[in-house]
Amino acid sequence: MSKKIRIGIVGYGNLGRGVETAVKKTPDIELVAVFTRRDPAAVKTNDPNVRVFHVDDAVKYTDKIDVMILCGGSSSDLPKQGPEFLKLFNTVDSFDTHAKIPEYFETMDAVAKSSKKIGIISVGWDPGLFSMNRMLTEAILPDGVGYTFWGKGVSQGHSDAIRRVEGVKNGVQYTIPKEEALEKVRAGLWPELSNRDKHLRECFVVAEEGADKEKIENEIKSMPNYFSDYETVVHFISEEELKKNHSAMPHGGRVIHTAVTGEGNKQIVEFSIKLDSNPEFTSSILVAYARAAYTMYNEGHIGAKTVFDVPLSYLSYKPAAQLRKELL
Amino acid sequence: MSKKIRIGIVGYGNLGRGVETAVKKTPDIELVAVFTRRDPAAVKTNDPNVRVFHVDDAVKYTDKIDVMILCGGSSSDLPKQGPEFLKLFNTVDSFDTHAKIPEYFETMDAVAKSSKKIGIISVGWDPGLFSMNRMLTEAILPDGVGYTFWGKGVSQGHSDAIRRVEGVKNGVQYTIPKEEALEKVRAGLWPELSNRDKHLRECFVVAEEGADKEKIENEIKSMPNYFSDYETVVHFISEEELKKNHSAMPHGGRVIHTAVTGEGNKQIVEFSIKLDSNPEFTSSILVAYARAAYTMYNEGHIGAKTVFDVPLSYLSYKPAAQLRKELL
Repeated sequence: MSKKIRIGIVGYGNLGRGVETAVKKTPDIELVAVFTRRDPAAVKTNDPNVRVFHVDDAVKYTDKIDVMILCGGSSSDLPKQGPEFLKLFNTVDSFDTHAKIPEYFETMDAVAKSSKKIGIISVGWDPGLFSMNRMLTEAILPDGVGYTFWGKGVSQGHSDAIRRVEGVKNGVQYTIPKEEALEKVRAGLWPELSNRDKHLRECFVVAEEGADKEKIENEIKSMPNYFSDYETVVHFISEEELKKNHSAMPHGGRVIHTAVTGEGNKQIVEFSIKLDSNPEFTSSILVAYARAAYTMYNEGHIGAKTVFDVPLSYLSYKPAAQLRKELL
Repeated sequence: MSKKIRIGIVGYGNLGRGVETAVKKTPDIELVAVFTRRDPAAVKTNDPNVRVFHVDDAVKYTDKIDVMILCGGSSSDLPKQGPEFLKLFNTVDSFDTHAKIPEYFETMDAVAKSSKKIGIISVGWDPGLFSMNRMLTEAILPDGVGYTFWGKGVSQGHSDAIRRVEGVKNGVQYTIPKEEALEKVRAGLWPELSNRDKHLRECFVVAEEGADKEKIENEIKSMPNYFSDYETVVHFISEEELKKNHSAMPHGGRVIHTAVTGEGNKQIVEFSIKLDSNPEFTSSILVAYARAAYTMYNEGHIGAKTVFDVPLSYLSYKPAAQLRKELL
């Protein structure tokens, strides 16, 4: 490897930290710097040698960074940061507000075409690897139905919602796929299933001293959008127990496509993940797509791209002939 | 869809028949003709309207067929037919002799570059979808180990081997993954497993009248390469039972990648298939890659390609914006 791919990280939360550790597992990528909106001196990186700068200084690094990995959130960070950074850098991000992906793509595509950069958007596992499996299986087996299940895993959004309830000190919510729904899908019965039919919500809640637990439980279970339409289970536990048993960020899920070919032959394809660390997994995917962005850019590709547009070989540091020999 | 993609089938066995039925499930592809080495008049297609010609006449159809799907076997047909047809047509094939893929690729690549066509080789599920998952997961999670399990399913090669044993009238062999090996892999123990550690072989054998069953069983179990290194189970059954219960072509398998990120977080990715009809599944994949070959060719791509080189969006008839909206 003559020259390493130089990446930068924008935003140093769970995802940014995951990118920092994922880069260390690659032979061909180096982390140049982390960019933050906070005071750079206050950001402690895992590796103390990593340099930290303010995002406003990123413009000085356009010739020192090949790909910027944007690790902000989808609700407020990426809609602003995505176009800003794509004006100056090739970017990879994990924009995951499914309903707004088409609009985000158009915005990013226009910026990239004007700046002559490449921006791979919505990289991760959903959107990301799960999307790839949904798309691939539908294309191969058009006479079929696809199902996506999430969990068991922690949903940050639902955990936040619990913590906003009066009398709640702390809380974590797990999204859990329902076994009976999974069984119907795997049996090829093509059931009609809403997200609420497929998942139940299990909450571990730390109540403040003297709080009315029954009231808290009712308030959680009747919360619109988040819980009211779901089968919801609430457990009250101590702060110690929460810290001990529920501070990891596991997740998982599966995409199942059940289809028919010929004279009624059932064909089932299933892709599943089981993760000890959701952010570290997503970060590892971001790093592989940063490699792809770099290669595609050097081949003259510009514009916004998604996981549907990137040939798989671009994700590996290995030459194509080696991939064919070892893995095909 | 203004104009359908026109495909031809070379070789009308299980795979060719599967392609014929798979094309019927697509809105954008039409089957122009089947080409056979047999007497065309003797070949009965599922759809009697499909035209059948001798392979020697294929040369007359170069302006009527966009992509030729080669449905011959890997041991003797494809090494000859692949280069021959690629001189005249874009091709897709399922060349599956893993050890010879690099050599086959080089041959096909040289032909394609001279004929200015595109040839996508080794398409199917292994090589094919399984390879894609092996490659993708290794690229994303380099600190990990990948495992491939086959079955439960019928192995044609091993069934043929059984039928060559003296005193055997008929027989079918199932490759079955071993549960204990699967459990060790899923537990993330990174066990060292050979193919024989991962699979057992179950044989259903119809003996000729008066044949020495003990001798047959011993001969099967001690057969080098095929059975001697494996745990092998032999059942003797009647011809009727074989026809009734063992004439389908089910198969299955899984690719499991178990890896570690950060401070020892386990991450497990699994891709699995469960097929009622192995040839119909493979054929469906071939048809989707024929679509990709057509599009890539029209964009100016030439040469030999593999599943590693084809962006997933090329497999679908849906426009990119629709894919992003519906499936990303």
